[in-house]
Amino acid sequence: MPEPLLMSLENNVYLEDEALIIIDRRKLPRTVIPVYCTEAEEVAQAIREMMVQGAGDIAITAGFGLYLAAIRLEREGKGCNRVQLEKTASLLSATRPTGFHLALLLEKILEKVGQVGNNQPASAVILAFLQRALVRQKAVSQDTGRHAETLLVSGDTILTHCFAGAALLYMLKYARENGKDIKVICTETRPYLQGARLTAWSVSELGMDTRLITDNMAAWCMSRGMIQKVFTAADRIAMDGTVANKVGTLQLAISARHYGIPFYILGYGGPDRRTLKGEDIPMEERNAQEVLEFQGIPISGPKVKGFYPAFDLTPPELISAVITTAGIEKGSNRKKGAGKNVSG
Amino acid sequence: MPEPLLMSLENNVYLEDEALIIIDRRKLPRTVIPVYCTEAEEVAQAIREMMVQGAGDIAITAGFGLYLAAIRLEREGKGCNRVQLEKTASLLSATRPTGFHLALLLEKILEKVGQVGNNQPASAVILAFLQRALVRQKAVSQDTGRHAETLLVSGDTILTHCFAGAALLYMLKYARENGKDIKVICTETRPYLQGARLTAWSVSELGMDTRLITDNMAAWCMSRGMIQKVFTAADRIAMDGTVANKVGTLQLAISARHYGIPFYILGYGGPDRRTLKGEDIPMEERNAQEVLEFQGIPISGPKVKGFYPAFDLTPPELISAVITTAGIEKGSNRKKGAGKNVSG
Repeated sequence: MPEPLLMSLENNVYLEDEALIIIDRRKLPRTVIPVYCTEAEEVAQAIREMMVQGAGDIAITAGFGLYLAAIRLEREGKGCNRVQLEKTASLLSATRPTGFHLALLLEKILEKVGQVGNNQPASAVILAFLQRALVRQKAVSQDTGRHAETLLVSGDTILTHCFAGAALLYMLKYARENGKDIKVICTETRPYLQGARLTAWSVSELGMDTRLITDNMAAWCMSRGMIQKVFTAADRIAMDGTVANKVGTLQLAISARHYGIPFYILGYGGPDRRTLKGEDIPMEERNAQEVLEFQGIPISGPKVKGFYPAFDLTPPELISAVITTAGIEKGSNRKKGAGKNVSG
Repeated sequence: MPEPLLMSLENNVYLEDEALIIIDRRKLPRTVIPVYCTEAEEVAQAIREMMVQGAGDIAITAGFGLYLAAIRLEREGKGCNRVQLEKTASLLSATRPTGFHLALLLEKILEKVGQVGNNQPASAVILAFLQRALVRQKAVSQDTGRHAETLLVSGDTILTHCFAGAALLYMLKYARENGKDIKVICTETRPYLQGARLTAWSVSELGMDTRLITDNMAAWCMSRGMIQKVFTAADRIAMDGTVANKVGTLQLAISARHYGIPFYILGYGGPDRRTLKGEDIPMEERNAQEVLEFQGIPISGPKVKGFYPAFDLTPPELISAVITTAGIEKGSNRKKGAGKNVSG
């Protein structure tokens, strides 16, 4: 069975003839549309418009944006213009504030470029860094998936929200390899429908029994005994254990608690050490117009306003465990023992 | 300010030249499309396809279907063919099983036709019955809205789900007349978007400050202190206090309980005396295909299955009060003191 397109970032975000190609996730799975970016500004725009999503994937994609900027500076004979690179990094960093991997990875790239100085072109330093980051991200996803798989029991149906990334797919792949029969229910995840378009599609391409529900059906499925475990990702975990993730995560966690269903976070590299509390996480609010229409078609009346918080905060007391590269951490204290950072 | 189209059923379901005209609610508010029905079967189809919705409105619309059948029998010189009318009533009754008003109203019409016998054409008996039912339904909506309004305090923002019917609109209208400043947040209510298309539109046409959110944003809004009260309707209330309503109601009630926010049911005529327990309510499951597409466009992969429960059950312990024509009933015991039935 071929690997689902979204299981490895290099399948859908990659360099070709010195352009960065991004497969537009907003159009998946109906159409696979490659978007060519030759400027960092175009990459920033692609991230802003959610052609690529997921905290780790966004970070590496932005890294490629910085690479394009370095290439351009070198072509123009400006060499390693540190000021210009920092300006571009700021632009890329500002696109999506809630996930912490983006700013952190760009910062680390600039640090590396600074260390190397004039011994090597910045573009080569950045590219080498990104190639290592891709390898590391795959390993982090596999390790997280391997630990999470131990939580699954044959016969389980799991619920997932939005697109929890490659760790979810590895978890399910390993479960099948271990002979466990696992079914998956995906919430469609409005307004962008990542759950329907990315998760349900990818999981079904893995060969799993996959069912799609609308976001408002989750508690009813729980109340009927249809769901044994819930797994979501996290865009950022604060040191107090609060999880920022796609809006809707909070109400799934509340419902899971109500029905005594374990609620797990695929935490990849672990918390953001620089964010102490949930309230310190910058919460992105997107253009309200995006909830007032679907694919350009208005769905309400002309006098109606919209509200589009892209993320919500789930407090640690609603989370059964966070699964990282370091293993399964129960309870709300994850100040010690967290794994390597995705972008670190 | 003109009355919103959906505030009175006679604005959107009415006879014209012996055809029944139904304004197709699936197309509102963008286009106002009148669907002409001249046969009971067409009315059944319109109900099944959700051109009209809401337990009380469905019941009266089905009654007009029975009227069309009576007209046809009389034209064909078959007079009051009781067997044929009963067959048509069964067909209409089977279209939507969860709301109880439909079967009850058709039963009462047949009873009335039987009482009158051959003294009057069945069609005239049915039409007179329906005219009284329309008047009664408006009075029930107004009374329910009047009682519910007393729960509102100036400055409240209320959350509502799906389309809670005319009682919600009257409640808001009376609140404004009483000088209360009330804001409304509507969940879009997937997959048919009744919240976006019907409620948010109607409420904004009343002149209220109206905001639309996707179904997965409700708990986050609650956690931020943005919502003071939740109001939904009920398609059926069992005698044990369990409420069947549009899927998503349950998880709103769970979230409201989590945040200590009152959760109110606009109960119109009150419970169904013949349904003792929640588990006795027939729960409609609709075509799963309807969650696999969004306004006709496929949103997931070809191997993905859907699941579309149209309703869910909210237990009485999650409900702060049920508001009926008889007033506000707190707690879960509503075996006594319930108001008149919408279709009674």
